[in-house]
Amino acid sequence: MDPIRAARGTELSALGWQQEAALRMLHNNLDPEVAERPQDLVVYGGTGKAARDWPSFHALTRTLRSLRDDETMLVQSGRPVGVFRTHEWAPRVLIANSNLVGDWATWPEFRRLEALGLTMYGQMTAGSWIYIGTQGILQGTYETFAAVAAKRFGGSLAGTLTLTAGCGGMGGAQPLAVTMNDGVCLVIDVDAARLRRRVDTRYLDMVASDLDEALATVLKAKAERRALSVGVVGNAATLVPEILARGVGVDIVTDQTSAHDPLSYVPEGVDPGDAPDYAAKKPEEFTDRARASMAKHVEAMVGFLDAGTEVFDYGNSIRGEAKLGGYERAFDFPGFVPAYIRPLFCEGKGPFRWAALSGDPADIAATDRAILELFPENESLARWIRMAGERVAFQGLPARICWLGYGERDKAGLRFNELVASGAVTAPIVIGRDHLDCGSVASPYRETEAMRDGSDAIADWPLLNALVNTASGASWVSIHHGGGVGIGRSIHAGQVTVADGTPLAAQKIERVLTNDPGMGVIRHVDAGYERAEQVAAEHGVRVPMRESDDVT
Amino acid sequence: MDPIRAARGTELSALGWQQEAALRMLHNNLDPEVAERPQDLVVYGGTGKAARDWPSFHALTRTLRSLRDDETMLVQSGRPVGVFRTHEWAPRVLIANSNLVGDWATWPEFRRLEALGLTMYGQMTAGSWIYIGTQGILQGTYETFAAVAAKRFGGSLAGTLTLTAGCGGMGGAQPLAVTMNDGVCLVIDVDAARLRRRVDTRYLDMVASDLDEALATVLKAKAERRALSVGVVGNAATLVPEILARGVGVDIVTDQTSAHDPLSYVPEGVDPGDAPDYAAKKPEEFTDRARASMAKHVEAMVGFLDAGTEVFDYGNSIRGEAKLGGYERAFDFPGFVPAYIRPLFCEGKGPFRWAALSGDPADIAATDRAILELFPENESLARWIRMAGERVAFQGLPARICWLGYGERDKAGLRFNELVASGAVTAPIVIGRDHLDCGSVASPYRETEAMRDGSDAIADWPLLNALVNTASGASWVSIHHGGGVGIGRSIHAGQVTVADGTPLAAQKIERVLTNDPGMGVIRHVDAGYERAEQVAAEHGVRVPMRESDDVT
Ligand SMILES: NC(=O)c1ccc[n+]([C@@H]2O[C@H](COP(=O)([O-])OP(=O)(O)OC[C@H]3O[C@@H](n4cnc5c(N)ncnc54)[C@H](O)[C@@H]3O)[C@@H](O)[C@H]2O)c1
Ligand SMILES: NC(=O)c1ccc[n+]([C@@H]2O[C@H](COP(=O)([O-])OP(=O)(O)OC[C@H]3O[C@@H](n4cnc5c(N)ncnc54)[C@H](O)[C@@H]3O)[C@@H](O)[C@H]2O)c1
Repeated sequence: MDPIRAARGTELSALGWQQEAALRMLHNNLDPEVAERPQDLVVYGGTGKAARDWPSFHALTRTLRSLRDDETMLVQSGRPVGVFRTHEWAPRVLIANSNLVGDWATWPEFRRLEALGLTMYGQMTAGSWIYIGTQGILQGTYETFAAVAAKRFGGSLAGTLTLTAGCGGMGGAQPLAVTMNDGVCLVIDVDAARLRRRVDTRYLDMVASDLDEALATVLKAKAERRALSVGVVGNAATLVPEILARGVGVDIVTDQTSAHDPLSYVPEGVDPGDAPDYAAKKPEEFTDRARASMAKHVEAMVGFLDAGTEVFDYGNSIRGEAKLGGYERAFDFPGFVPAYIRPLFCEGKGPFRWAALSGDPADIAATDRAILELFPENESLARWIRMAGERVAFQGLPARICWLGYGERDKAGLRFNELVASGAVTAPIVIGRDHLDCGSVASPYRETEAMRDGSDAIADWPLLNALVNTASGASWVSIHHGGGVGIGRSIHAGQVTVADGTPLAAQKIERVLTNDPGMGVIRHVDAGYERAEQVAAEHGVRVPMRESDDVT
Repeated sequence: MDPIRAARGTELSALGWQQEAALRMLHNNLDPEVAERPQDLVVYGGTGKAARDWPSFHALTRTLRSLRDDETMLVQSGRPVGVFRTHEWAPRVLIANSNLVGDWATWPEFRRLEALGLTMYGQMTAGSWIYIGTQGILQGTYETFAAVAAKRFGGSLAGTLTLTAGCGGMGGAQPLAVTMNDGVCLVIDVDAARLRRRVDTRYLDMVASDLDEALATVLKAKAERRALSVGVVGNAATLVPEILARGVGVDIVTDQTSAHDPLSYVPEGVDPGDAPDYAAKKPEEFTDRARASMAKHVEAMVGFLDAGTEVFDYGNSIRGEAKLGGYERAFDFPGFVPAYIRPLFCEGKGPFRWAALSGDPADIAATDRAILELFPENESLARWIRMAGERVAFQGLPARICWLGYGERDKAGLRFNELVASGAVTAPIVIGRDHLDCGSVASPYRETEAMRDGSDAIADWPLLNALVNTASGASWVSIHHGGGVGIGRSIHAGQVTVADGTPLAAQKIERVLTNDPGMGVIRHVDAGYERAEQVAAEHGVRVPMRESDDVT
């Protein structure tokens, strides 16, 4: 079979732009530039797929091409299972991926059902057809470091030094995200090849020959308030304590080694080249040693914390593993969501993204300009948009991502719809987002860790999010189980809405892009966050429990 | 506070009939005639609630009264958490109750969150505002015995003898359901008071003084093909084996003792009056003895099976408990869903119900006549409607339930809408259903037990059901976790649609009442049931995987 690639341009192979958009984005998810293993239908995240199998893929394509403007296709874990007559305001596609009844929500049961051909892993944006490549990871990491800067360093990382480890698939975005925030970054990786690859792709500026050179280089840049990223080869369990002991002026410490899986974290004294073989042959012994190393690593992170440094867990479970390794104070520092992201969630902020169905990069440039015009006061946003324009190579259909909040997303969406209507862009724009968003996910180890009211595991919210997006005019809506944190650990929802330049699309965009982030605002009001209450009050978001009988 | 009772008549206290209907049905669920413990907001099923707490109840009432025709209220586990602008085709209310992330989907965690005020137990129709009292249980039991009759006895139980045990809250519907199907029923209960109460309410015809009299009476009635129900006091673990040993001509054997909870099943040799105290003081010993008795009880049921009798488990887990009690062949007979109900599900059949917002019983009489006119060829349906009209005392707003399938529900709904439009009924009719339906539930111990393709635990289907009902014009839609089988064991969805006599309502009814049972058809086509494939083919239900590239 030829590689799959989304159609470009303005010629439709479906009966309307909403159907065409779903079709192009399904195909785009499987473009070799975008997907990790397109031949297996795997888009990203280990086994996150766009369709269950090839017959399902072909049936999806065929059904989208014939779907009418008042019809809706239902997708059950990557397979189209029905087409029903609905109405024009209804989504064209409704998707439920990887969902299991609670007592059966385990990896072994999931794998068993997957082997029977009954389900697939949808990840977050793989099975919901709105993955746009690694730009999303870079932007999320950029946003996190921007939030660190906002919280502690007056809005910029200029003149600060960040120490981290792990320069792999996700972690490799850290050095660039720090320098995009004008900071200095020192990143440790046990595997020299990983660091070199990041230099090749311009995510990392240089690799130092040893720790002394690395420290001298980063401290000089910090003193000069010059953005710079430096890699150093070594084991984090050795080097982090060493840097702590030397009393170096580090401002921020985090980590993105592959700590979530103790067979992936390389223990001290083990050569990274030998690790996979050793882990396969003696998994228990390897696990014990990895956890002992992580305990040492995290103990040093807590040492930095005690010294006043900003320290956070970056979603890799290193605190839990260090605790299993015998280190009691592992949870003294917080996860990144409660520390930095939750205040954004309270404002309905989250990863807004869009793609140009024309395939023309000039269309994204036009939307970039529109964003800069719409939000001139948001400097961090402007910095991101400009740098992304320069540095991000598109994968598949040209796309952009940035974080926008309640009252902003609808503005941007309506502007994009005007650009389509006026011909300033050459074809419709699809507007979607990650399932990781302010009001769309229940995930007690990540997005909903340590909610103020203890509601971490309440899963009503993502379901309401999917229902209200369906009721507001989204073009396709999805509910997934699993995603980034795995089976049994999260439920999340997504939506994509097509700006085709019509007045009807404008009405739908206005409602969806108000109500969708609105879910984030009310979810955080309900949990007792004051910032969310302020935002609700400022923007007139209705919260029935806060209204009195007099009001109505 | 005064008892809550739904408003009657045609005067609106809300801005439209859909909002008014939700309001009245919320209040109706808490009517003392309907609810088990209205003072605690508990409707039925142990702790199934209509609203989280009294402040939430008042906020729901107030918000429904002010909700506009293009607005949607969101309800998170019985509490209104938001109001968003949507559109006229959107539901007025979207509900998610009791949902938890898989790894936290346990009773202890649920109870902990409930105690924190963060969730409530929604059961199936309690938190979704469409419970109509015990008529639902009677009708479900009637339908099950009708299905037994259809499968094995030529469509009627006339001339057959059914042996069962357990005459409590649910089980007490059995004798009446059997006689409504023209059969003879012998029901054993260890507690004489339970049997007497059922005679008082005309669910049971008589209580015999001993087993000899009971058997003589039922065998005479069976020989005369005369409908009759007889109760006998005794322990099922003693009497079922005794009746087997006597070689009595029993045609059907089942059981509805409270076997799901071994502390509720009375062991042999224990007086029912002493059982609660004994169970509380020595739970382990009591459990062992109860399971040993259940093993004996089920062994006798398998004895009947070996003798050619129709034997089934009626959803009380007695097979599992007997197996724990050491009896190996416990699962030799099937559960009632795979045995009788699944063939109905393949046809999109399920418990269709409606209520008259006028409060006037004459309106239900008019709808009863409409059903008899619409489906003259369905004898079992006609028998039910006539007997229900005679025997069922309304609780709260007058209501009716009957099972209808794909191609029938939309017809009935449209007819009801015409009755409203023409003034043949005096106010709008709400049309809903139980969450136990053909395409709305994933519940591996009940509704989706032993699916042909092994997809019992796949939970995508109820989520798609809720999404497609939201996209089709339902007035309110709900997604619940738990329900009849408990936390961790099921996910299910519900919808209610208001027939207010308008052309728009007709369009919505036509779509919802086609697509909702359509989910049952496609779910069973996907699982490989031939009957569902026939139904899909006959009615033109689209199944994308069965279409070829040529078609479209
Ligand atoms: N923040 C989030 O939301 C988020 C998102 C995705 C992934 N993660 C987590 O981040 C972690 C990294 O993800 P990834 O995709 O980059 O993984 P990866 O496997 O691609 O990279 C891990 C890197 O860590 C290095 N490493 C392993 N042990 C080391 C040690 N002892 N010292 C120094 N370096 C070591 C490896 O050489 C490798 O380069 C994972 O645990 C993942 O679950 C977090
Ligand atoms: N079919 C379904 O879908 C469905 C629905 C609801 C409930 N159930 C199950 O049906 C069972 C009965 O429910 P219920 O609400 O009627 O319970 P209940 O507690 O009201 O009644 C149980 C009855 O069984 C009697 N009993 C107990 N031990 C006995 C023994 N050894 N011999 C004879 N009688 C005995 C009790 O005296 C009581 O009258 C439960 O296990 C319930 O979970 C099934």
